[in-house]
Amino acid sequence: MKTLHIKPLTREAFAPFGDVIETDGAQHFPINEGTTERYHDLAHLNMREGGRAIVSIFRGQPRTYPMEIRALERHPLGSQAFIPMQRRPYLVVVAESQLISREPGTVHAFIARGDQGVNYAAGTWHHPLLAMDEVSDFVVIDRKGEGHNCDEFMLAEALLLPAG
Amino acid sequence: MKTLHIKPLTREAFAPFGDVIETDGAQHFPINEGTTERYHDLAHLNMREGGRAIVSIFRGQPRTYPMEIRALERHPLGSQAFIPMQRRPYLVVVAESQLISREPGTVHAFIARGDQGVNYAAGTWHHPLLAMDEVSDFVVIDRKGEGHNCDEFMLAEALLLPAG
Repeated sequence: MKTLHIKPLTREAFAPFGDVIETDGAQHFPINEGTTERYHDLAHLNMREGGRAIVSIFRGQPRTYPMEIRALERHPLGSQAFIPMQRRPYLVVVAESQLISREPGTVHAFIARGDQGVNYAAGTWHHPLLAMDEVSDFVVIDRKGEGHNCDEFMLAEALLLPAG
Repeated sequence: MKTLHIKPLTREAFAPFGDVIETDGAQHFPINEGTTERYHDLAHLNMREGGRAIVSIFRGQPRTYPMEIRALERHPLGSQAFIPMQRRPYLVVVAESQLISREPGTVHAFIARGDQGVNYAAGTWHHPLLAMDEVSDFVVIDRKGEGHNCDEFMLAEALLLPAG
C-alpha cells in the first residue's frame, strides 16, 4: 500500500484545493480604536444554486493512525470551511481534480497547525474530518440549500496515512 | 456611575440579541460513519441588501477591567458572529432596541465561556470585542457588500463593566 507523505499546510501548497484560514500573510487592519486587528475576508465562501452559508460545529473523534484512506467526498454546490476551536493540529487529505473524468487524481496530505483553518473550494475531493489525539471541535461554514451536494468516490487502491 | 451586572451567557437570556453558538442544547446528528457529530446550523446568518457572508479573524487585545462602556455600535445590514479560537472566556455587552427611537435601551452584560460563540442579529446594539486576560483570536462571520452598515451611539451616561 502506498504511504502518503504529510506536508505542512501552507497557502501556496493548498491553493489548488481552497483557502488556508490564518492570520499569517493575510491582509489586516486595525479596528475598534486599535484594540482589535481584523484579518479580513480569508476564504472564498461559494454557495451555489441558491444555497446559503450556515455555521455549525463538528465534533470529531480522533482517528487511529496509521489509517487507511479508502474513500473521498466532494460538495459540488458549495465550499466547506473548518476552523479548529481548541488550537489543535489536524490532518487534511485532498485530491487533485482531473479535468475530464472529474474523478480524484493525485492525493495530497497536509498537517494543519491549530491556528489554521481550511476552506475546501466547491467540488474539491477531500477526506472527512481527521482529528488527532483528542476529541476536537471545529467551526464549519458550509452550504444549506436544495440540490445534490455530496459525491463519494471509492479509491481503486487504499492509501496509508501515517501519524501526523 | 452605574455598574453592569454580568450574567452567564445562555441561549434564553441572549435570544433578544441573537444566537449563542454552542453544542449544548443544539440539534445534532452523526456523520462521517459516526466519527463526527454535526451540531447543525447554529446561527441565523442574515446578510441583507445583496451582501454576502465572509469569514475573518479578529485578534483582540485584552481590555482592562473595570472598564467604562461609553459607546455602542450596530450593523443594520448584517448579522455578525464571533467564535473563540482558543477556548477563552470573553465579555459581551449588548443593548435592547427601543421600538420607536431605535436607540439603545437597557444594556446587558454577559460572560461567554470559551466554547460559546455569539451571533449578533442584524441591527443589535453591541460593544466591540471585549477580550479578557490575553490576546485572543475569534472567527468572525459578517457581511461584505454595499451600503451603510455601521452606526455608533454615545451613551448619555457611561456604564461600568466590572471584571468578568
